[in-house]
Parts: sequence; structure tokens; C-alpha cells
Amino acid sequence: MKYIAILGLGVVGSGTADLFYANKKEIAARVGDEVQLKYVLDIRDLPESPYADKIVHDIEVIIGDPEVSVVAEVIGGLHPAYEFTCRCLAAGKSVVSSNKELVATYGAELLGLAEEHGVQYLFEASTGGAIPVLAPITRDLAGNRVQGISGILNGTTNYILTRMFRAGATFEAALTEAQEKGYAERNPAADIEGIDACRKICILTATATGTLIDPAAVHTEGITAIRQSDVQVAAQAGYTVKLLGRMVEQSGATFVMVAPFLVPAASPLASIEDVFNGVLVKTDFAGEVLFYGRGAGAHPTASAVAADVISVLRGDAPRRRWSKSDGGVPADFALFTCRHYVSLCGVEKSAVGVVWSEAELLPTEGEEIALLTPMISEREFEDELARLGASGARLQAHIRVLD
Amino acid sequence: MKYIAILGLGVVGSGTADLFYANKKEIAARVGDEVQLKYVLDIRDLPESPYADKIVHDIEVIIGDPEVSVVAEVIGGLHPAYEFTCRCLAAGKSVVSSNKELVATYGAELLGLAEEHGVQYLFEASTGGAIPVLAPITRDLAGNRVQGISGILNGTTNYILTRMFRAGATFEAALTEAQEKGYAERNPAADIEGIDACRKICILTATATGTLIDPAAVHTEGITAIRQSDVQVAAQAGYTVKLLGRMVEQSGATFVMVAPFLVPAASPLASIEDVFNGVLVKTDFAGEVLFYGRGAGAHPTASAVAADVISVLRGDAPRRRWSKSDGGVPADFALFTCRHYVSLCGVEKSAVGVVWSEAELLPTEGEEIALLTPMISEREFEDELARLGASGARLQAHIRVLD
Repeated sequence: MKYIAILGLGVVGSGTADLFYANKKEIAARVGDEVQLKYVLDIRDLPESPYADKIVHDIEVIIGDPEVSVVAEVIGGLHPAYEFTCRCLAAGKSVVSSNKELVATYGAELLGLAEEHGVQYLFEASTGGAIPVLAPITRDLAGNRVQGISGILNGTTNYILTRMFRAGATFEAALTEAQEKGYAERNPAADIEGIDACRKICILTATATGTLIDPAAVHTEGITAIRQSDVQVAAQAGYTVKLLGRMVEQSGATFVMVAPFLVPAASPLASIEDVFNGVLVKTDFAGEVLFYGRGAGAHPTASAVAADVISVLRGDAPRRRWSKSDGGVPADFALFTCRHYVSLCGVEKSAVGVVWSEAELLPTEGEEIALLTPMISEREFEDELARLGASGARLQAHIRVLD
Repeated sequence: MKYIAILGLGVVGSGTADLFYANKKEIAARVGDEVQLKYVLDIRDLPESPYADKIVHDIEVIIGDPEVSVVAEVIGGLHPAYEFTCRCLAAGKSVVSSNKELVATYGAELLGLAEEHGVQYLFEASTGGAIPVLAPITRDLAGNRVQGISGILNGTTNYILTRMFRAGATFEAALTEAQEKGYAERNPAADIEGIDACRKICILTATATGTLIDPAAVHTEGITAIRQSDVQVAAQAGYTVKLLGRMVEQSGATFVMVAPFLVPAASPLASIEDVFNGVLVKTDFAGEVLFYGRGAGAHPTASAVAADVISVLRGDAPRRRWSKSDGGVPADFALFTCRHYVSLCGVEKSAVGVVWSEAELLPTEGEEIALLTPMISEREFEDELARLGASGARLQAHIRVLD
């Protein structure tokens, strides 16, 4: 018999408990031993919960029980999740986590602490919900050099952008709809400002490269400035607007960013809609590989938590060692090069043509000029925009283009 | 130092050797030890090959060398691949394989033999080329019950169907084009008749359920009967035609089949084009998960071979045990239920309406009647078609519909 504990009986914690009960027999066969949920840590009593008899309020009960070999931390937030994780690892228990904030912040230390104590720290559920992506990068693409990652990593923003694209909704209307459906929080800042996606691209980048970068060093833009008219103009030109977390290699430099991008219709990312997530991994031998599925939700996230628990118990967990970035990664965003979608007003097309002679003008209604610039660096873009500003141009919208 | 050998210096063998040289440093870091290619078995001398100095002609050299711990069998075909694999496993060497025919035929025995000798038998490269899919099903979806699999498992046929859909090509013209581009063999029967996809859906089903079925027991149809007009009529109704390998649970029965299907545009399988493959796995907790990438080619397949080699050397290989089906799986195909696209001539719409009152008529040019039937079993479909035949109807086309 193997015993596990769950820290936090919220949405993911309940889903994880549900899974271990629902698929008890299958899991026993796969592990080669019965797996039993022994404790659930929560500050509440939750007498209505089917797991009420497992609830303890004191982490010491779990830490002090040598029978518990794996702990699932699904509390979220930095504290007390960090302290609990350290205590469990130091007590010789493997920890699996859905906590993207914790992994993106303290992942390197916690992996080191796990190695020091001969246990595992796994976090498949922190990125992409149900989608197997971290373990496949570590294990199933291990023969490759990962050259790039582009992911739709946040279901809330993808739902909003899908409604803007499919139903002609404004950003505000689509956000309200997402809130009504329970896809967006009442305070949606972490999603719509790109903070959630930023943590996830940091975790993905570290998984692929072994280097964990500070989320604060990542150029991060959300989707609040995307207008319905931009989505329509882009659609007519064959693009869909998506919020992407990206790791991009250019001229030997590694750029990491979160920003909305115009995604060409032929990209496998273009057809990922609603609350689904997808991660496109570019490699030297395998080429482009896409992982797609539900990026959030009680049961999908529980699937990833359970995979990690089972992996620990079977002894086939992916082993990782991360160092913290010494500052070389991410590279200076001013040097990142791509095409840019720009909408301007207060300027003549001829003046735009002087600055961007190879720009592709897009058909628009009204007085705005919409165009796609040639490949230019962020710095060049800013400089050229300033020149146009001197001629009276006012920037209405700016979205980068995925090549 | 770890030593490996490759059996067969064909396309995949060369690609695998390339990979271990190109990414030597990265692989050493991931394995924790240098990995060196010691032998390549081939009947030819191949003096022009960069690996000419590794070539041996006698399998006994490899079997007798205790330094070789992993052997990559990329010969293809049943013999001598089967005998070589047995010999290597019995000699205490793990074997990784890209050989779908061998795995679909002898996978259960070979997994048993590997277990008996305390080594691994892995075959990620046999299904989906570069796409991590077998290991993710075994490891990363291990908390789930797999309830269904629908895969685009053959790049040749997907290329042909894509050209029929996108460029209005006939089947014959698209096949010729695929042959000219090197995507189809001169004798394309194994691809266009569905035989290749059949082996792969057998391997996927065994990976998900633990039961290996006889490929000969699988209802298998190819794409040779698909007409350009069917693709166009389907497109106008919002469908794309795809050759799918499927494992489907219905009323407690498990059906396995290979056949062309009308795939609704909203399905993530619909946008998988050209030579790409994709596998959609339906599970109870994770929901639907899609794995997408290059299904064939020297370097993509080498990526999967390398992942298995590295996995063996790191000790985190997915462990599997398969039994051979006792006959309950696959269930009798006559009971499989779906909607059907049918094109008929020699009959009035009113007569069709008597048999299929809830059919959805599709707009066609000319005298044929095209329609989508309601959900009916294969047996009902055959019976009802016979009734229409008695009224003079002649079947011009029949393609099932993915729901």
C-alpha cells in the first residue's frame, strides 16, 4: 500500500481526490500497488466534503507520518506553499505541484532540495493543465535541442480572443461573458495582463533549457489593448490574434516573451479555440510538435497531478536540474526581430511608405491605416514609430506577427 | 560510457546515427554519461556512409558484446527483425524499435521476453513518427481511463486527402504527386489501403488498454474509393475527409477500425494537413488531448528512437505488459454505430426518405443524391442500403462521419 496526501481541498484538490477514488483499480494496476489518500490538509473543516474524514489542519501530521511518500501541493500562491513544500521534501517525501507561481519563482531551489533529499519535485499540472507537455519535453524529446516554444497558455484569454474572432465581441463584452461562464475570475488581471502565461513560459523554458529565468525579466503584454477592429482586419488578412508565451532563438540569443501575436491561419496554433491550450515545440530533429488539450479545470488538472504521483511511485519520474539565469537569458528584448501589425491615424500612407517601404498595407474602414511592417527589431520599430510620430502619426494598435 | 548499436542503416538508421552525433553533448548531459554508437548492422558495406567504420554484417558481434546495452532495431518487416530482437532481449540488451509491423504482430511476446530478461522493449517510433504519444499515454495519462483514440496515422494518405481538399485534385493525381515528392512509395498499397494505419491503431489500442488485437481482426478500409466530388460535397457541408485509425467505446464494447471519416471542421483533427499526423486521445479526467507532429521521415523518427534509447539509459522507461486479445476486442463491427455519408444514384429522394426519414440531404450537382444518415449501426446501414438497392439505388460512395 502506498499513501499520499493532498495539501489544499480547493477545486484541484477535490478533483485529484476524485480521480484517485474513481480510477483506484486502474491506478493500482499501473503502480503495482494500491494507492490510498491518507490526508487532506485544509484550514477548513468542510464537513460536506466526501473527503471530510481525511482532513487535517496541521501540516505536521503529514510531515510526521513516514507512511506518506508523495504529497500533492495544490494550494497555490507562494506562502505557505513554499514552506510546506520545503518541509515535505526535507522529510523525504516527493512533492507534486500544480502551483505555477511557486515553480516559476522557486523551482530551481526546490528541485535542488528534492535532489539533496533523494526525492522528486514534479509540476506537470503547473503548465497546460491536462496536457502532457513538461514530461514529454524532458523525456520524449530528449534526443533534441529545443529551438523554440510558442504556447497558448491561458484559457481565459484564449476564450476572450475566440469570442472576439468568432462572434465579433468587443474585449469588454467577451471578458464579461468569460466571467459569467466562470472562465475568468472577478479580478481577471493575472490572466488578461499575461502574468499567468508568463509564469508558464518561464516553466516551459526552464524545462527545455535547464535555466529558470525571473518572470519579472520577461517582456509581458496582455490583451486589454486588442480592439475588435484589429481582430477583424487581421482576420481578413488571414490571421487570428492569440496571446502567446514564447521562447525564441534568434542569432544565438534566447528571447522569452508573452504578448498577443497575429497567428497565420495555417499555423496549428490558429485553430486552438475557446479555453483550450496548446504548446508548439520546435526542435532540431523532431521538427514541430504540438501538445493540445484542456489547460485548466478540476479534472484536467487532476489528471496531471495524478500522472506525477504515479510516476513517482513507479520510479519513472523525469529528473530535472535547473540553474537560475545569470542574466544572459532572456536576451535584450530590444533586439527581438519580427513583423509588426500597426494601426495608425493622423498620417498619410505616403509618409508611412517613406519609413516602411516594404510594408504590406491592409484594407481598413475609416481613417486608420493598418499595415504589416517588414522584419525589424523592437528597437528599429520604436525608432521608426518615433519618426512617424514626428509627422503626426498616432499609434492606435500594435500587435506582433508570428512567422 | 554507454554503448549502443543500430540494426539497419536505412533512412531511419542513418537519421538515428546522425542524431547521436549531432546532439552528443546534450544527450550525455541528459543521460549522465556519454553515449557512443558502437555498431551498425547492415548486409551492405556502404563505404560512402559516415558510419562505414561502425558497420558489421553479423548480428553475433553485437549479441556477443556485453558493452552494448541498447539496440535500436530499425530494419522494418517481420524477419529477421523478430529473430534479432528476440536474440538481443535474451542476451540482456534492451531493444527500441521503429518497426510497426513487428510490434503490432509480436509486441505482446516481445514485451514478455523483455520482462523475463529484466530489460526494456520500447517502440515510440513505431507510431506517429516524431510525435510523443505512446509514452505520454502510458505515463502522462496514467491517472485516466482512455475511452477513445482517433488518429491521423499515415502521412501519405493525409497528403493525398489534403491535396484533394485544398487543390481539387483527383485521388489518382494526388497519389502521383505524392509519389513524385517521395511521400508515397512506388507500390503505395500499405498506405492507401489502410494497412499501415491499422498496425498503428493496434499499437495505440494496446498501449491504452493492455490488450493487443490481431491487425487482421480490424475493419480496415483505405482511401482509394474517395472521389473528388465526395470531398467537395463534404467540404460544403463543413467536413474534411480524413483516414482515421480509431478505438471507440460504445455501450461497453470496444471497436477498432481504420476507415475514411468525414471530420467536422471544428475537430482538432480537421486542421491536420499534408504529411502531418495527429492522435486525439479521449480520457475520463483529462478530457481530449491531441498530439501532433511529423509522422515519418529520417530525423523525426530518429527523435523517437533516441527518446527510447535515452529513457532506457536513464531508467525512466515506460513499463508495459500486453496480453493478446481473447476475442472480445475488437467488438463485432456490425454493431458499430455512427452517421454515414452516402451518395446514391438511380433512386428518387422520396424513396430515400422512406428508409432514412431523418437523413440530411446535401446539395449535389448532377443526378446523384448525397446525404448524411442518422446514427445507425453498420448492420442497420447494410440492411437499409439493401432495401434501397431493391428500389434501384446504386451506391456511389460511402464514408462514415466522426461525431
